[in-house]
Amino acid sequence: MNTLDKNMSVSAYMNDIGAKARAAARVMASVPGEHKTAALRAAAQTIGERKDDILAINAHEVEAAIERGQKASFVDRMTLTRARIDDIINALGEIAAQDDPVGKVIRKWSRPSGLDFERVRTPIGVIAVIYESRPNVTVDAAAIAVKAGNAVILRGGSECISTSKALFDCLQEGLASNGLPECAAQFIETPDRAAVGELLSGLDGHVDLVIPRGGKSLIARVQSDARAPVLSHLDGICHVYLDRDADIRKAVDITLNSKMRRTGVCGAAETLLIDRARLDEIWPPVASALREAGCELRGDETIQKIDSNVIPASEEDWRTEYLAPILSVAVVDGVAGAMAHIEKYSSAHTEAIVTENQKTAEAFLFGVDSAIILHNASTQYADGGEFGLGAEIGIATGRLHARGPVGVEELTSYKNIVRGSGQVRP
Amino acid sequence: MNTLDKNMSVSAYMNDIGAKARAAARVMASVPGEHKTAALRAAAQTIGERKDDILAINAHEVEAAIERGQKASFVDRMTLTRARIDDIINALGEIAAQDDPVGKVIRKWSRPSGLDFERVRTPIGVIAVIYESRPNVTVDAAAIAVKAGNAVILRGGSECISTSKALFDCLQEGLASNGLPECAAQFIETPDRAAVGELLSGLDGHVDLVIPRGGKSLIARVQSDARAPVLSHLDGICHVYLDRDADIRKAVDITLNSKMRRTGVCGAAETLLIDRARLDEIWPPVASALREAGCELRGDETIQKIDSNVIPASEEDWRTEYLAPILSVAVVDGVAGAMAHIEKYSSAHTEAIVTENQKTAEAFLFGVDSAIILHNASTQYADGGEFGLGAEIGIATGRLHARGPVGVEELTSYKNIVRGSGQVRP
Repeated sequence: MNTLDKNMSVSAYMNDIGAKARAAARVMASVPGEHKTAALRAAAQTIGERKDDILAINAHEVEAAIERGQKASFVDRMTLTRARIDDIINALGEIAAQDDPVGKVIRKWSRPSGLDFERVRTPIGVIAVIYESRPNVTVDAAAIAVKAGNAVILRGGSECISTSKALFDCLQEGLASNGLPECAAQFIETPDRAAVGELLSGLDGHVDLVIPRGGKSLIARVQSDARAPVLSHLDGICHVYLDRDADIRKAVDITLNSKMRRTGVCGAAETLLIDRARLDEIWPPVASALREAGCELRGDETIQKIDSNVIPASEEDWRTEYLAPILSVAVVDGVAGAMAHIEKYSSAHTEAIVTENQKTAEAFLFGVDSAIILHNASTQYADGGEFGLGAEIGIATGRLHARGPVGVEELTSYKNIVRGSGQVRP
Repeated sequence: MNTLDKNMSVSAYMNDIGAKARAAARVMASVPGEHKTAALRAAAQTIGERKDDILAINAHEVEAAIERGQKASFVDRMTLTRARIDDIINALGEIAAQDDPVGKVIRKWSRPSGLDFERVRTPIGVIAVIYESRPNVTVDAAAIAVKAGNAVILRGGSECISTSKALFDCLQEGLASNGLPECAAQFIETPDRAAVGELLSGLDGHVDLVIPRGGKSLIARVQSDARAPVLSHLDGICHVYLDRDADIRKAVDITLNSKMRRTGVCGAAETLLIDRARLDEIWPPVASALREAGCELRGDETIQKIDSNVIPASEEDWRTEYLAPILSVAVVDGVAGAMAHIEKYSSAHTEAIVTENQKTAEAFLFGVDSAIILHNASTQYADGGEFGLGAEIGIATGRLHARGPVGVEELTSYKNIVRGSGQVRP
């Protein structure tokens, strides 16, 4: 199915995919939750059974990418190992185990007219996921979308299209063998870039939501070209603020973990803010822990004065998502100063405060307007799995529909059901 | 403030409005709920006090519109009367009385990591409302947006711009005299159409949401040109389905009310579906009530056979939002047939079923995928006021963010607050 015929235009191929997705979405809206759960469990099992084949296909593609001179970080993201396949299998299990959101009553109320109202969750419909060469996204994204009762159209990076397709086949067989429509998940097989343009155009209204997952250039292209609604995040310029009332141990641990646990994730800290009132005490242990872990430190003028080894930070640094072992450091005047810096420079993704002062913490939690705000915890908890969503399709930094980790429930809509006894409006 | 200087470009004027709105939105996010309530109550009082002046300004504009040869329906929508001003005042009171959504905890949960999670409502930010010559929208839309803690930018139809401005002034004085930022509500005074283009461009990222309110051409333009997210509805092709198990009295009353109470609202029924199994009994009383009320009936072939006075319906009729005393009528095979017709032709706004059979009703309520689905009640209940939202800024037929009547709560976003005790991610 959906193999691109030589005589078929990309546009015709894509429109066919769109129409099939819409038809599948209509069926998906009312399939029993158990079927979705069983389908995802079956997919997990099949992936386990085909582990060796999938690894072989992946090894081939990895080799080709290395030969083409791809960067190490790129190659790393596309590489599968036994452990990474196990992660994919576990994620499928967790998504399968989530409550079925479809049909859930969100709110219930009555009116003096005698009408009874219910808001009931429904799937969104057809979701297109456009991602780079990360094979695990194929399964994560599709599983979350399907669990929420949607039909999904996947367009993955061309460098590991065969690996992604091998994983996808496991998923689709799981759907088909559990009574779900085969086209509830579709995979775009042509590497032709025109296919992305067609997806972004909305396939004649058949795409209800586009989710880009990948680097800045991909997301920027999707945001600028999409005619269908987009759920995405741009940068993750995340801040950690060490308050005058911080516990020094927590300050060190949380800063180190927020920056260095994994530097390439969007929830990694990029800027450290330190309260001037206790700078002399906080800076030395924090700086030494970071340096020991191999982190480059770029400081403002105040930091430069107390630490001659720090690299001067430029205005540009406050606006940069390094995704690397580099941290910019600014000294601020208390929580108000931290909030002002965040308001000016943050990408509204994730920010953390370290303090033992409850009042200061609450001022920060309520005053900062980002998708995720943490008190005494690492910014690297910005993750759907850690939030208990099973897995995530991404972290939304927009302000509409969903904000923060996007899991199963965030990929639903709702409808309004009204029950009467013959009411007419005066 | 914000008066367009002769030497100022529309672009500079609009960007200034955008920056002021963003600054006001930051303040609005944390103003006490009582201030917002008091501001809206003060605005209502001021409108009451200036009723005569406002009516005089409106009379002037109405006269000019008539002289320019505007249609009666257009003139009617822009005309204020004492009763209509009272409606505006009452709507303000109802919006003021709504619960303050900002800061409300939507959900609360904990994780094995020891982290405590809270989803907390926040305002969306800056909302632009673009509407036609209906002065009441000025107050309704602004009040709902402000109650939800947003800053709002209003662009009303030029034919009654002075009436709208007079109402707007009352609102803004209410804000300013109750400690809210004056620019929490701004009114675009220039009739220059380029101002709309600037608004749709998003004013340098300062517009978080655009809401068009008006006819098809306005909404189509906004949907095609907006760079900022849009919340809107297109057509309201609403259906009433009379099932074989319908109570005949309810069938007649609900059909008549759904179609004829007000024919120009988006919740008015445009197509009637009748179950073939009881057509002979249902049709005569329904047809005679509609004809008596002055409704033109256009029927499919089956209806034409049993009623020679019916006008033949064309394929186009099933796709038409008449907004007039015209009703298309199709005969269907039971609830499944009704659902198939709705799936094919509905604009996913509002549909109603009339039946005494609970099982049939539930099949319809859960199977139909529209923003609002009613059982034994008129489609004209598709209204934020009737839903208990105080008032509405419109009925959303999209599937993201909000669906159905958009009131105060629907104009909010949320953020994720996480409380820890020093957690770092392994």
